[in-house]
Amino acid sequence: MQNSSSRLLDKAIDQFASLPGVGRKTALKFVLHLLKKNTEEVTAFVRSIDELKKNIRECKQCHNIADGELCEICSDERRDKSLLCVVENIKDILSIEATSQYNGLYHVLGGIISPMDGVGPADLNIPTLIERVEKEPVREIIFALSATIEGDTTGYYIFKKLKNKESLMISTIAKGISIGNDLEYTDELTLGRSIVNRVKFSFNE
Amino acid sequence: MQNSSSRLLDKAIDQFASLPGVGRKTALKFVLHLLKKNTEEVTAFVRSIDELKKNIRECKQCHNIADGELCEICSDERRDKSLLCVVENIKDILSIEATSQYNGLYHVLGGIISPMDGVGPADLNIPTLIERVEKEPVREIIFALSATIEGDTTGYYIFKKLKNKESLMISTIAKGISIGNDLEYTDELTLGRSIVNRVKFSFNE
Repeated sequence: MQNSSSRLLDKAIDQFASLPGVGRKTALKFVLHLLKKNTEEVTAFVRSIDELKKNIRECKQCHNIADGELCEICSDERRDKSLLCVVENIKDILSIEATSQYNGLYHVLGGIISPMDGVGPADLNIPTLIERVEKEPVREIIFALSATIEGDTTGYYIFKKLKNKESLMISTIAKGISIGNDLEYTDELTLGRSIVNRVKFSFNE
Repeated sequence: MQNSSSRLLDKAIDQFASLPGVGRKTALKFVLHLLKKNTEEVTAFVRSIDELKKNIRECKQCHNIADGELCEICSDERRDKSLLCVVENIKDILSIEATSQYNGLYHVLGGIISPMDGVGPADLNIPTLIERVEKEPVREIIFALSATIEGDTTGYYIFKKLKNKESLMISTIAKGISIGNDLEYTDELTLGRSIVNRVKFSFNE
């Protein structure tokens, strides 16, 4: 699709077309949809993005995104603070929360060990995880990582760092999730079951 | 997908999920993509929508969207001002421009006669079309309307209004476009051919 007759329209189309999976035709559809809305609605749209970008913070405890110092999960008194679920990114938190099968806290690694992509342990939020386990009354750590070589490697690396800490149970979500699949594409039922059936962490050395 | 742990994130997700064809999972993907960009890039995104909404105008001649009084097509001196292509909406202009087969001007009706949807001739930009034909040296009018009952009805209605104007040729794009399909889903090749092979307008009364 070539450029339209309006520079303003083209600019907005270009911006929407930069979103993942959005081509120029879809971008045009989005823009025309916004143009049909009234000014207040468009202002609300624009402001929601603007405020998110300006005000969003990282939870200083679990690295989830947060509106304040702590995210709503970390500051929720009803959650079990002795359980820590280790995930790759915040999308995984949303997926697990959607199963309603977990009531502990999280720890977001911010990635996964992947030599192919040049991501090593030093690039991830592993030191703060070790620190949390040292300082807080954590009873159990659950790895909810993708069932890939990278996920296994990351779990194993953290397991080695923590295994000499007695009284700490280290588990991993059951491999009910399909081997080779990324966590975010797992359906809620399977993912929920895999949390309930989590098993003690072990690795064939 | 239930709400996330951040009110700011939820608000932005809600806004993106209001776009056509976008669910909450896709909206989340868009928002996380924007969060990864730097502040300048997000500001550019937000500003493009804001400026479009605030500054976009309607071309006073053809009702296309425009940055100024006239759209770029109407103010382009190289275009043939004796040819008028009548379309339903501005998306159709973009589709026809993409074929590079047409060098005249346009007239956007802003809809199509559809008794089922309560759209009558009075709701469309038909009076300004008649006015243009009266005042300007228009030699030919081409209907580029969807090959549906509504499209035919609209063409026929305008045809009746204009048929006693001598020296005006009234044509319609060839029915190379699939009968029953909307104009915007036609591929560029077929659409381009249908403009080249346009035929004199006639209707079985």
